[in-house]
Amino acid sequence: MPKVGIVMGSDSDLKVMSKAAKILEKFGIDYEMTIISAHREPDVFFEWAKGAEERGVKVIIAGAGMAAHLPGMCAALFPMPVVGVPLSGSKLDGMDAVYSIMQMPPGVPVATVAIDGGMNAAIMAARILAVSDTELLDRLKAYTVEMKETVQAKAARLDEVGYEAY
Amino acid sequence: MPKVGIVMGSDSDLKVMSKAAKILEKFGIDYEMTIISAHREPDVFFEWAKGAEERGVKVIIAGAGMAAHLPGMCAALFPMPVVGVPLSGSKLDGMDAVYSIMQMPPGVPVATVAIDGGMNAAIMAARILAVSDTELLDRLKAYTVEMKETVQAKAARLDEVGYEAY
Amino acid sequence: MPKVGIVMGSDSDLKVMSKAAKILEKFGIDYEMTIISAHREPDVFFEWAKGAEERGVKVIIAGAGMAAHLPGMCAALFPMPVVGVPLSGSKLDGMDAVYSIMQMPPGVPVATVAIDGGMNAAIMAARILAVSDTELLDRLKAYTVEMKETVQAKAARLDEVGYEAY
Amino acid sequence: MPKVGIVMGSDSDLKVMSKAAKILEKFGIDYEMTIISAHREPDVFFEWAKGAEERGVKVIIAGAGMAAHLPGMCAALFPMPVVGVPLSGSKLDGMDAVYSIMQMPPGVPVATVAIDGGMNAAIMAARILAVSDTELLDRLKAYTVEMKETVQAKAARLDEVGYEAY
Amino acid sequence: MPKVGIVMGSDSDLKVMSKAAKILEKFGIDYEMTIISAHREPDVFFEWAKGAEERGVKVIIAGAGMAAHLPGMCAALFPMPVVGVPLSGSKLDGMDAVYSIMQMPPGVPVATVAIDGGMNAAIMAARILAVSDTELLDRLKAYTVEMKETVQAKAARLDEVGYEAY
Amino acid sequence: MPKVGIVMGSDSDLKVMSKAAKILEKFGIDYEMTIISAHREPDVFFEWAKGAEERGVKVIIAGAGMAAHLPGMCAALFPMPVVGVPLSGSKLDGMDAVYSIMQMPPGVPVATVAIDGGMNAAIMAARILAVSDTELLDRLKAYTVEMKETVQAKAARLDEVGYEAY
Amino acid sequence: MPKVGIVMGSDSDLKVMSKAAKILEKFGIDYEMTIISAHREPDVFFEWAKGAEERGVKVIIAGAGMAAHLPGMCAALFPMPVVGVPLSGSKLDGMDAVYSIMQMPPGVPVATVAIDGGMNAAIMAARILAVSDTELLDRLKAYTVEMKETVQAKAARLDEVGYEAY
Amino acid sequence: MPKVGIVMGSDSDLKVMSKAAKILEKFGIDYEMTIISAHREPDVFFEWAKGAEERGVKVIIAGAGMAAHLPGMCAALFPMPVVGVPLSGSKLDGMDAVYSIMQMPPGVPVATVAIDGGMNAAIMAARILAVSDTELLDRLKAYTVEMKETVQAKAARLDEVGYEAY
Repeated sequence: MPKVGIVMGSDSDLKVMSKAAKILEKFGIDYEMTIISAHREPDVFFEWAKGAEERGVKVIIAGAGMAAHLPGMCAALFPMPVVGVPLSGSKLDGMDAVYSIMQMPPGVPVATVAIDGGMNAAIMAARILAVSDTELLDRLKAYTVEMKETVQAKAARLDEVGYEAY
Repeated sequence: MPKVGIVMGSDSDLKVMSKAAKILEKFGIDYEMTIISAHREPDVFFEWAKGAEERGVKVIIAGAGMAAHLPGMCAALFPMPVVGVPLSGSKLDGMDAVYSIMQMPPGVPVATVAIDGGMNAAIMAARILAVSDTELLDRLKAYTVEMKETVQAKAARLDEVGYEAY
Repeated sequence: MPKVGIVMGSDSDLKVMSKAAKILEKFGIDYEMTIISAHREPDVFFEWAKGAEERGVKVIIAGAGMAAHLPGMCAALFPMPVVGVPLSGSKLDGMDAVYSIMQMPPGVPVATVAIDGGMNAAIMAARILAVSDTELLDRLKAYTVEMKETVQAKAARLDEVGYEAY
Repeated sequence: MPKVGIVMGSDSDLKVMSKAAKILEKFGIDYEMTIISAHREPDVFFEWAKGAEERGVKVIIAGAGMAAHLPGMCAALFPMPVVGVPLSGSKLDGMDAVYSIMQMPPGVPVATVAIDGGMNAAIMAARILAVSDTELLDRLKAYTVEMKETVQAKAARLDEVGYEAY
Repeated sequence: MPKVGIVMGSDSDLKVMSKAAKILEKFGIDYEMTIISAHREPDVFFEWAKGAEERGVKVIIAGAGMAAHLPGMCAALFPMPVVGVPLSGSKLDGMDAVYSIMQMPPGVPVATVAIDGGMNAAIMAARILAVSDTELLDRLKAYTVEMKETVQAKAARLDEVGYEAY
Repeated sequence: MPKVGIVMGSDSDLKVMSKAAKILEKFGIDYEMTIISAHREPDVFFEWAKGAEERGVKVIIAGAGMAAHLPGMCAALFPMPVVGVPLSGSKLDGMDAVYSIMQMPPGVPVATVAIDGGMNAAIMAARILAVSDTELLDRLKAYTVEMKETVQAKAARLDEVGYEAY
Repeated sequence: MPKVGIVMGSDSDLKVMSKAAKILEKFGIDYEMTIISAHREPDVFFEWAKGAEERGVKVIIAGAGMAAHLPGMCAALFPMPVVGVPLSGSKLDGMDAVYSIMQMPPGVPVATVAIDGGMNAAIMAARILAVSDTELLDRLKAYTVEMKETVQAKAARLDEVGYEAY
Repeated sequence: MPKVGIVMGSDSDLKVMSKAAKILEKFGIDYEMTIISAHREPDVFFEWAKGAEERGVKVIIAGAGMAAHLPGMCAALFPMPVVGVPLSGSKLDGMDAVYSIMQMPPGVPVATVAIDGGMNAAIMAARILAVSDTELLDRLKAYTVEMKETVQAKAARLDEVGYEAY
């Protein structure tokens, strides 16, 4: 039973959104992933978003570019958290999507992450689920240590070889 | 039977959207006007947008601010023209609404007018209906003459009294 | 007799504007297409825009970049709908054209579509003509079904092969 | 024991952030609220953020304006969700805070809501807690119905009295 | 015989554009000033712009806001310099007008001055005329001395009374 | 004796600024062209700008990118028209230069042209000189005809071969 | 003998720049303060900037709005640090000044602080002087403690009286 | 003993930040350089920033992209000057970093240089140290002469070979 639903408006969004899938896999979180356009198939979209709770979904990750209505419409139909990923495909480098996702009216929030932030969307989903899952919380803390060690290794290497050879 | 449906997301949008109503009245075009939030009552919205064609509506004028999904979702559900009015209520002076309305993906266009352009949205609706209504077309041409004369009267007055006294 | 007039300011705009032509052909709508610069040949432009109605044109699609005056000046001279396509050629990625096309003063609207939205401009023109052409309206509805099926096929494929193999 | 920690960088942020407090009260969610500046008292801030988990906090709501580092630094020190509220006090109308909060690097996400979106931040916190609290989830669903009825009442009134009298 | 033609799209532009008139008067330069809308009366506009050279006009100062086509269309019809003044009336604080005036295509330049820069437009016109008018050039040089003395007087006063009393 | 002085802040600006030189050559206008940095050699710059009038210069064309102070400082030191060309080299695509050049304070205007508009800067210089040079004015009018014919030839070709073959 | 030179382009800048003076007084740092326009009196400006070192000045604080050339031109003429304060007077809310001050070319840096950041400019000057003045450094550290206590007092009060009464 | 501490958030920042190192070497200034992420290892970061003064550091140069908190958090923990370098790696071309670095609240300034201005950050650090180091000040003055001669050589070459051959 999926805990996270990943949805995107077009298959051109897969490159960014598959980073979300990979992070969920890393943290051992079940998910479903699909392509649905709120504009090109509103009925399919409504069914999917309204049925998500019943399918076991606790968090939706929705990625969209341009006039990115998918995350906000998910938030209108699904009662638990929706994480929105503004995608940068258009000439406006994702600012159109940022405004369309972040500027939701009072009552219907979307948790917006960075432009093309597929990876961070999944970490946010993991943090949300970790509120009631101490094992997952431990995995997130271990991940934090991992990140720290990665940066420290880089610093050590820079220290050793200097910036010219790095 | 209404030919134009005016819809807005909040009653705070009435100040701009009532300008659209006034223009339609001036041109003798029947319309319906209502307040529906795509985010706060998606079911009501779906019903309204899907039923518009049957109610006789030929053009929808949709005004919304911030993450303005109303016009685009209308365009997903209604097969004839949707005119979108970006509203400026937020801290971003309407640019959030512009991006959310104008940057629609291929296949589902919205006819975007100027920020707070309620009046122009109605004139666009009139121009659309005038494609198959020569009487309305004549009224639009008369309106053009009227606008010209208004500007000319201002120019004449400036010429007469000078800029200090104007 | 052309129902739609496609006009652009430069032959460098052809790449985007020919998408409009293709959509009109797909929907079986007669059109004329030409290159006219409002700035470099204002007289030619005036003739063309003022004569459009007589040539049978019901909708003008005007594409322009930078200080994009072509759509707005068309709207000043032609009494039926003008659809404006902001083009992205300049260093400002089309935002200069968006402002020059969308921010028309009260009385003279342009129906602005997305940056480089040649395809959507033609669909908007088709929707406008469909107001009084039920056969065209049916073709537009069929197109909507077609779009839906295309996305569904992608979703099915993703479901089948997974995001790695997609 | 507080489930949500509300933190802001300055008492000038109280006007927006108290909206978050009110929503949490409405949903019966325990919270703590304080003023801490990550820049003016980094030690105090570190203590507070690192101790939050032990105090029972499951979600942090952090509001800040200008170079808004508070939400991101919370996300660096607290392992569960951080909701960031960009505040609009500066000359840049909150866009400086949006970029400082939303554009977090991979690994350390902040759930960004709309500019001055104190209310939505609290609803997002409630949605997050509702993932493992069915009673709270029911309250959120009831709230959705409430919002719907409020808009419908406005629509009914507009229908009754018309836009002039509204 | 007027040497400078001042034109603006609306009488709401008079507040800024009358500053241009005052500067021209100060420098003893003959001018004509009128209100013409390129969008609402294109025929009137064409006549005016094409006839300017014959009326003796050597420089046109054109002020406009929003989708500000007036300066650019002047430059298309008048062979000598056009100075464009972007006006800030709209929600976009004049940036729409800046893009519409400044981003002219190769071949048809407009000399753009600061937003609401009515005064500077006239000084630019004076500098242009001073290229072939040494007396006017002397007046411009005297004006430079005047400006210098005004700032020096302020510096002297600040030095004398201090910033508290200033 | 040069009538136009072309100055740029760096040799990386030559690509755009040499377009200005070519246009001046086409119109038979004598010019001088040099590289001077207002920031790296302020004394050299002051000498050059203050001596321009004596060298015969009637119009300065100054191109600069980033914090583009060169055009504005020219306008402070030279009493006749300065045409400013904002260059796009930086990460901000020339908007930094636009603001640095266009937003001059009252009293010291710069005639700003489009981003990277080296060609238009020279045409503006030609228009300025044409105010008192009827022969040059005739060449400018001939150039207008030339531009018109170029566009008309493109339109004719499009008409002949169609957009696919163009 | 002044250690810091405060300079601004206009007396309308005094409101922000006097905050810098107050901070310098608080830290017991000698300063001189004047009004000089780089555009309206370039000779006076050159004298002032070139003579600053001899007058004992170690840091210049330069505030300017719009096309803010003053800080950058100071950096061209003065060999020690120049702190630039972008001022927000114009329609562009200080972004024109930010770009004009911050985007200096390689070799000639300006230390840019926040829009209207007169107070922070002086603290930056104090930090710079504290590099070689341990007594001043101690005062800066005491100031840090002071800031911390101020925020803590606010937090205590909020804790005591609650957000409603605050 | 290092006088300057160079710190960056990621090894992808090395390309820009090594320019700072090279300039410091050129001026004979001792420095330390490392990679530390304020978000991924806040404890390591705190140690480093708090210990800098004791290690002899007088100026910190901090480079970061996106939600660039590193420079501002350095300024919160280190009492002498922090120079911030906004890096352009993200889709927003560095404007996210500019806002996150420049818009610091009163009391805690960062000296912001141009986007990707690693070189200028080091020159600013040198200017700061030169306040109390006359030998270094002389090297900075010599550098100014060097820059002047470089530009003059380019101007001479352009004069000699012309723009075509340059």
